Amino acid sequence: MAKETAGIGRITLIGVGLIGGSFVLDLKRQGRVRQVVGVDCDAANLARALERRVIDEAYGEICAGAVAGSDMVLIATPVAALPAVCRSLAPLLRPGVPVSDVGSTKQSVLAAFSDGLPQHLPWCVAAHPIAGSDRHGALAAQFGLYQDKKLILCPHETQDAGALATVAGLWRAVGAEVYEMAAAEHDAVFAAVSHLPHVLAFAYVNQIAGHADGARFLDFAASGFRDFTRIASSHPAIWRDICLANRQDVSALLAGHIRELESVRTLLETADSAALYRYFERAKTARDDWLDAQV
Amino acid sequence: MAKETAGIGRITLIGVGLIGGSFVLDLKRQGRVRQVVGVDCDAANLARALERRVIDEAYGEICAGAVAGSDMVLIATPVAALPAVCRSLAPLLRPGVPVSDVGSTKQSVLAAFSDGLPQHLPWCVAAHPIAGSDRHGALAAQFGLYQDKKLILCPHETQDAGALATVAGLWRAVGAEVYEMAAAEHDAVFAAVSHLPHVLAFAYVNQIAGHADGARFLDFAASGFRDFTRIASSHPAIWRDICLANRQDVSALLAGHIRELESVRTLLETADSAALYRYFERAKTARDDWLDAQV
Repeated sequence: MAKETAGIGRITLIGVGLIGGSFVLDLKRQGRVRQVVGVDCDAANLARALERRVIDEAYGEICAGAVAGSDMVLIATPVAALPAVCRSLAPLLRPGVPVSDVGSTKQSVLAAFSDGLPQHLPWCVAAHPIAGSDRHGALAAQFGLYQDKKLILCPHETQDAGALATVAGLWRAVGAEVYEMAAAEHDAVFAAVSHLPHVLAFAYVNQIAGHADGARFLDFAASGFRDFTRIASSHPAIWRDICLANRQDVSALLAGHIRELESVRTLLETADSAALYRYFERAKTARDDWLDAQV
Repeated sequence: MAKETAGIGRITLIGVGLIGGSFVLDLKRQGRVRQVVGVDCDAANLARALERRVIDEAYGEICAGAVAGSDMVLIATPVAALPAVCRSLAPLLRPGVPVSDVGSTKQSVLAAFSDGLPQHLPWCVAAHPIAGSDRHGALAAQFGLYQDKKLILCPHETQDAGALATVAGLWRAVGAEVYEMAAAEHDAVFAAVSHLPHVLAFAYVNQIAGHADGARFLDFAASGFRDFTRIASSHPAIWRDICLANRQDVSALLAGHIRELESVRTLLETADSAALYRYFERAKTARDDWLDAQV
């Protein structure tokens, strides 16, 4: 376990926002990282990150200075930027330096690693922390974001065990519970519990707001509507990228959802009171059980 | 406005739970109601209501003693009980005594009033307070539940203006904003912003929990899942009753929702990035605008 508590000297953080910023803040406080180099295309965001001491050095683009001497590179940009980021990193990386990410889809990330960093693939570690916030940017970075949150690692066939252990150790250090699963399983799981409900929430809001009487409807929307649609306030570009990267899984679940709704509609149209009760009760039981199982 | 601030002497509350209990608690504190008679088939609930002084007298069923001398009757049972409650009340009511309710569907309530209390119809006032809580029963009754919440009145053709003003005045007294609309419009509005999302949340939970890999999926569900499915923890009998009472509106919207999902699925399958972005952005804008318009 020595490796897991040793920490690293210098880390390059590409994309200085809530997710990457919160990760390095905790590592710095614990003395597990000495120096953080931030790379971000948003100069104002970079300036705020320096000011708040989320990062110690700042670069507006990926270059030799940003990567030289680093013991790890964490890519915390939106997933769609990964292929370009990997191509930029390719000539700059020393063999053995772990490169990891935080993306919400993992098959697409492994493809980007494989295509963009073929020589470096053993040290590329696909990771996904299950945490977030409505806020974003360097100012949103916070201590303790990952405490008791899940972190999924998706090791690949040529994975270097040392790189995997380094990344796992740092996430455990910031409080995360680390799980491993294949990228395909990861994408199926998160299509079900995250990507599909986002699509459903966006679609529901568009249906109601786009209705001829939509404005009148929305005047009377209350707390049930508020919570059901919270995730429809998510960033459209991020969710477009996620849904496209994982579109086969999401599309298959969407087709299954449409079949599910057709069956409920039959219960309603036939006014099958007993079956409708059992249907709602089954959902309530599953949801209550899930909630009870959370800490 | 004298009538709206005068209050009433004695009120009979049929169904002593969160909704009716919270209403009378505020009225008593303000001195607008002198005495509350509670009728409930749950003896333990009645005893708690007496102990907490939500009610002053208790009856296990609707009878002459429970209604005699009352200046208003509020039916705060689940909507499906309304027809039987109205039939029981019919022989006991003095002409001119307002009878009101708190049900989530209003065409079905007007039908119950019309069928069960035909002689008393002018003094029957259909009302729906837009407030609630996950908790229920007399112990859940609380002060201030209706402050700044909406209350919908659905006056009917033979409505007595005095009875309507009395009911409106009491709801304003407990802090509600009172709106009037036709019962058909009410049911269309709440099908859209409340009944449909409940059905969608129940269906989504059943799809995911019922999937072959459902248990594994649920292990990794997080805050997005939690909020999107909160209303799937609602009471199955209450929601069966609401969905059946308003099944034409709900079924039509469900059909519209299925069409909406088919169109998103096409965007996914054709990987139409620009259109998918616009689709998500439109939903985010509508939802953010709605949220900004709330106090």
